[in-house]
Amino acid sequence: MPLAHPNPLVSRLSPPPIPSVVAWARDYDGGKGPLIDLSQAVPGYPAHPEMLRLLGEAAASPAMTGYGAIEGEEALRKAYAAHMSDVYGTSVAAANVHITSGCNQAFMCSTIALAKSGETIALTNPFYFNHETTLSMLGIGRVLVDCDAAKGFLPSLASAEKALLSGVRALAVVTPNNPTGAVYPPALLRELFHLCRKYGAWLILDETYRDFLPADAGAPHDLLSIEGWDETLVLLYSFSKSFCIPGHRLGAITAGPRIVGEIAKIMDNMQICAPRAAQAAVATALPILADWRAANRLEISRRAEALKAVMAETNGWSIAAIGAYFAFVRHPCGDLPSAKVAERLAKEAGVICIPGSYFGESQDGYLRLAFANADVGVIGQLRERLR
Amino acid sequence: MPLAHPNPLVSRLSPPPIPSVVAWARDYDGGKGPLIDLSQAVPGYPAHPEMLRLLGEAAASPAMTGYGAIEGEEALRKAYAAHMSDVYGTSVAAANVHITSGCNQAFMCSTIALAKSGETIALTNPFYFNHETTLSMLGIGRVLVDCDAAKGFLPSLASAEKALLSGVRALAVVTPNNPTGAVYPPALLRELFHLCRKYGAWLILDETYRDFLPADAGAPHDLLSIEGWDETLVLLYSFSKSFCIPGHRLGAITAGPRIVGEIAKIMDNMQICAPRAAQAAVATALPILADWRAANRLEISRRAEALKAVMAETNGWSIAAIGAYFAFVRHPCGDLPSAKVAERLAKEAGVICIPGSYFGESQDGYLRLAFANADVGVIGQLRERLR
Repeated sequence: MPLAHPNPLVSRLSPPPIPSVVAWARDYDGGKGPLIDLSQAVPGYPAHPEMLRLLGEAAASPAMTGYGAIEGEEALRKAYAAHMSDVYGTSVAAANVHITSGCNQAFMCSTIALAKSGETIALTNPFYFNHETTLSMLGIGRVLVDCDAAKGFLPSLASAEKALLSGVRALAVVTPNNPTGAVYPPALLRELFHLCRKYGAWLILDETYRDFLPADAGAPHDLLSIEGWDETLVLLYSFSKSFCIPGHRLGAITAGPRIVGEIAKIMDNMQICAPRAAQAAVATALPILADWRAANRLEISRRAEALKAVMAETNGWSIAAIGAYFAFVRHPCGDLPSAKVAERLAKEAGVICIPGSYFGESQDGYLRLAFANADVGVIGQLRERLR
Repeated sequence: MPLAHPNPLVSRLSPPPIPSVVAWARDYDGGKGPLIDLSQAVPGYPAHPEMLRLLGEAAASPAMTGYGAIEGEEALRKAYAAHMSDVYGTSVAAANVHITSGCNQAFMCSTIALAKSGETIALTNPFYFNHETTLSMLGIGRVLVDCDAAKGFLPSLASAEKALLSGVRALAVVTPNNPTGAVYPPALLRELFHLCRKYGAWLILDETYRDFLPADAGAPHDLLSIEGWDETLVLLYSFSKSFCIPGHRLGAITAGPRIVGEIAKIMDNMQICAPRAAQAAVATALPILADWRAANRLEISRRAEALKAVMAETNGWSIAAIGAYFAFVRHPCGDLPSAKVAERLAKEAGVICIPGSYFGESQDGYLRLAFANADVGVIGQLRERLR
């Protein structure tokens, strides 16, 4: 009898990286103090009590038990559109917003909306690993765009154009970047936008960490002010980091109404609608927690400064790029693969982080530290741990 | 400049059917009384107050804000495995369970786990429309297995074998069926299982409506007692209907640990984990609401009897199949396409239901009524409305 076998596009993938990395720490004996987890991007402070109250209230409500609109709760689409209009100084409508269950889902919906199996999408190298595995399991090819480590890991325009010339259906970039933390300047984003438009490709901009940009930085870009932006641009966002509620799974796509309509067809198949109660709670929280979120943004800047100080004083280590949430750091272990370095750090020093090699090709000299997970005091302890 | 265009596999799909059908009712003038919505399967009674209390409590908990295990909360995996063991009189382990955000997601994860673009999966004709559109947007071909209307819409074994001979990677069936309501007998399911095994294909069994089988029916099948079942069988389930909480999006996959591992890779990309708070709440509710769920099962049987009585007394209408949640009924409008009949029913009689043609080929003589949505009194009103 022939044996039924699973889809080779999935079975060839490694198991999900975060649980594998966390597993290394089980061998840590605690000798250097409590575990410091800088692996998964998880805010190192709790959700606001009012956020929790709103979540509880909405989840207990009979009104939230039924199916909701596929595109998302109207209240959240409106609140998020108003927020976007505010951030970008332009008018974004509720019809431009599709709510998803987290930003990984926003990315997966976008890729299915824009490309089919056998086509290609360009990612930067290094990339966010779930972007790469999403394409891989869907049979969508990836083309890599070089980032220059010497220039803070910003993508090369020449390399991006080469990818577009090869016929990719979309270019997907993350800013502030995961894994490097690099913040792409507005002018660079404009150039990427016009390149994509020139070649009839989509620009997918994952802005999961947008709320942790420096407070004085101004609008992250002006792409939404370009006439006809919605024929080229798809923006992704996550409510997880900013509101400290990743367990409630909430993200958003901003795009033209046509693409929102395509995403709705996909979401209907994928899960009908994002869970409703958290949508209602965040719709209320979005304006009223603005000050709290601004304070967190400052706190995360302090953490970045603390990490810079640690790295400046620690022999052999250096920061290759740092930004809103992550630092991509050079480790001092020469030719040792980054996975080995990260494994040793977890087992011997009780510090969990992600090997550079998980994020792309030729990244073995680096580790990703999600420094936002730890407060300034804990970051200070890295001085001892990284020796 | 070339224009960026979306994935043709998605753009060729019609907009999601439920909102389109509900839209027809906007033209109903209310002249025959309040709208009767028999379109989307939504329990026509509220969630239990204790369910709501548990949902609120979990959602307000700081412990539920972080990321959870990809495969699901251990508490829910264990509770559901114990429930499955009880229903099927066999041992199902937590390691056999993967929690998803609803049963559409369980189906989509399963198809990605088992087949890639260019391969085929067999569905019954009629099929649940989201199954068909999920395959379609992923570039997975569909092969249809005939169901004999004269035999209560049970799938033909000869037709199933023909599909398997053509090389489908899986056969997906729904029992109790959506749209027909047909309950597949255990012996038929065993034959389908052995046919799939013979040809090295997977059997995907969607049991979303399992909790509404007649109370005295015994185990729905004995497939989980077959040695090596997990090399052929993947079971899907939804907590939405049974606990009246579709807005919280919660489903489950039961499969071998190998397939659970494959699903985890897909879920990590799709949304990292299902929302956690509802998982914790349902883990607690599953055993304590058993009596309440049993009472609902009886109530739904009463509604089925009420619909049978209406149909027996209404000229030109008849029941082609009826089961746990749905009835597939013959309408009296001869050659009028089912979409036209449903549109007229919505606009003129204030009754919303789904045209047969939405569920497959040659189904224009039928309408799907989700009779479980309406209580016995409301079902009685159909006598007037269907004239």
